Amino acid sequence: MTESTQNRRIVLAERPQGRATLSCFRLEQVPIPPLRDGELLLRTLWLSLDPYMRGRMNDAPSYAPPVAIGEVMTGGTVACVERSLNAAYSTGDLVVAHSGWQEFAISDGSGLVKLPADVVRPSYALGVLGMPGFTAYIGLLDIGRPKAGETVVVAAATGAVGSVVGQIAKLKGCRVVGIAGGPEKCDWAVRELGFDACVDHRSEAFGRSLAEACAKGAAGPRGAGQGIDIYFENVGGKVFRTVVPLLNPFARIPVCGLISAYNEPQQPADGEFVQTLMRAVLVKRLTLRGFIFSDDYQHRLDEFQTALGGWLREGRIKYREDVVQGLPNAPAAFLGLLEGRNFGKLVVDVGGAGT
Amino acid sequence: MTESTQNRRIVLAERPQGRATLSCFRLEQVPIPPLRDGELLLRTLWLSLDPYMRGRMNDAPSYAPPVAIGEVMTGGTVACVERSLNAAYSTGDLVVAHSGWQEFAISDGSGLVKLPADVVRPSYALGVLGMPGFTAYIGLLDIGRPKAGETVVVAAATGAVGSVVGQIAKLKGCRVVGIAGGPEKCDWAVRELGFDACVDHRSEAFGRSLAEACAKGAAGPRGAGQGIDIYFENVGGKVFRTVVPLLNPFARIPVCGLISAYNEPQQPADGEFVQTLMRAVLVKRLTLRGFIFSDDYQHRLDEFQTALGGWLREGRIKYREDVVQGLPNAPAAFLGLLEGRNFGKLVVDVGGAGT
Repeated sequence: MTESTQNRRIVLAERPQGRATLSCFRLEQVPIPPLRDGELLLRTLWLSLDPYMRGRMNDAPSYAPPVAIGEVMTGGTVACVERSLNAAYSTGDLVVAHSGWQEFAISDGSGLVKLPADVVRPSYALGVLGMPGFTAYIGLLDIGRPKAGETVVVAAATGAVGSVVGQIAKLKGCRVVGIAGGPEKCDWAVRELGFDACVDHRSEAFGRSLAEACAKGAAGPRGAGQGIDIYFENVGGKVFRTVVPLLNPFARIPVCGLISAYNEPQQPADGEFVQTLMRAVLVKRLTLRGFIFSDDYQHRLDEFQTALGGWLREGRIKYREDVVQGLPNAPAAFLGLLEGRNFGKLVVDVGGAGT
Repeated sequence: MTESTQNRRIVLAERPQGRATLSCFRLEQVPIPPLRDGELLLRTLWLSLDPYMRGRMNDAPSYAPPVAIGEVMTGGTVACVERSLNAAYSTGDLVVAHSGWQEFAISDGSGLVKLPADVVRPSYALGVLGMPGFTAYIGLLDIGRPKAGETVVVAAATGAVGSVVGQIAKLKGCRVVGIAGGPEKCDWAVRELGFDACVDHRSEAFGRSLAEACAKGAAGPRGAGQGIDIYFENVGGKVFRTVVPLLNPFARIPVCGLISAYNEPQQPADGEFVQTLMRAVLVKRLTLRGFIFSDDYQHRLDEFQTALGGWLREGRIKYREDVVQGLPNAPAAFLGLLEGRNFGKLVVDVGGAGT
């Protein structure tokens, strides 16, 4: 392999006005600058595409600063050290980085996490063994606090986070009802992931189907024999409005995402739903809690990786990737993610094939 | 005093259609039935009037069953044992009961809590030392978890719950901003209760005034030097909508009431506020949690009464009652409570004068 001197990267060309489009992104090629002492050159193998990136495209206050116009799109990656002037890293090292939508990146080593040289599936570090898996683990266990026999509802059930939430909940003895888009995903959630039911939010019968699926559940410790004890919130919108009336007293709602709203800033007005929601919070003594995996949970990372790694090896947790070939296809794949067109954790094979 | 043979009571005459009115209540006189073995006759001294009673007038699912048409309105009371065929109680005992809007009640002794014979202010058992005080104590300390230097905002700041929330928060080293209706209440919250500021929600400048009052606060441990770390929610509606944008990351919102909505089931549509709220929950990692003092906190009751009793004796907690004379005036006083026309904890002196 001849040494690369050029870096292809995808930058934010313009901010979305409402729905994001391909014209928001620009693929460009720039020379790789020379390494300075202490630096290393990373070659991207895998790029993770995740819903939160839509928020970074807006110039609005959030928990992280927006991507600037002309700046490389942010993103988690698995990369190979191509050259190193940093004593802590050698050529060929595999690392988890946050080096963004580009084929190469220069790093001073900060924020990198080494992967074992013999890691079987490096891309899993961007999914089930990485940020999405950790989000599922913390959100379900720390905020949801599932008890055996309770009913857990998880939206985006076949996605990177939802699929892990549901499977851990099953391991904890819960009844799990997924929500997904389309019969193929719903079928897979039941057949492969072992969910007790999965309801298609695109179906006209969605509300009735969800109520029926939850009514079949075993009684939670304090529930009335049916209803929802934990709703893992990552989509918002219509799904959330449908779930709220089904919540049991003392239900917990970890909130890690609102994907339905990310790309549609002008959603239809919800009328009086906020009053329905707040009345439910009061009368049912609900707990709603927003969280981000990076908050206060880093001391749990080893425990998480040991647990998930074990469950994966034992076949007790299944994991599906939706692999897109080549960096230039990242924007279209990302726009599809916001529409739910992916099936499994979306990753871009930037140069990882065969690694 | 001749022995009474008649009981005056206020029953639910009809359910409110929208706003409650005097015609929802009916004062009636009925004979007191003879005592059976194990029973005692309670003579009501003080009746507590509380916002939650509005919910009991509706035939809607809640955490407690509705009052039936023709049934005595529910309510906490302090009562004197008038006659007893129950060995555990003697004539003259003072008890806290839940005997409702009536002058006499027959009890089998269950659910009664004796007050010391020398209790100085028996009516306090319905307020600062009773359910509202306990609600304030649990909600602020267990759900709000205040840290010194944080900013606490409490609505209905001069009410039975809010006044205690704010004063305990001050004792914990917080900066306290109250919200109340009218300059007189706001002035009293600052001058008497020691709040750092109190903002009039009836003022046209409410939103700006609240933002300014909160911007003056010391930085919370994780806040940005201003904003709200704990919002104790007991009113909902416009106040809540104004508070949400001012919340700091990791703010906690104990929800114990939504008085603004109780009497106006058809509130103006909130448009997209639910999206604003849920986005804030996610991005700021808020915790919203509904609770009721009777949930899981009974083991904390002694600790609460010892703490509040001590603070009251030491003058570190101040408490104001709004006393209405005579049971027949209870309905009008209760309707006033829902409009914020009371000033302090609303109690009805049913027969307590001089006790």
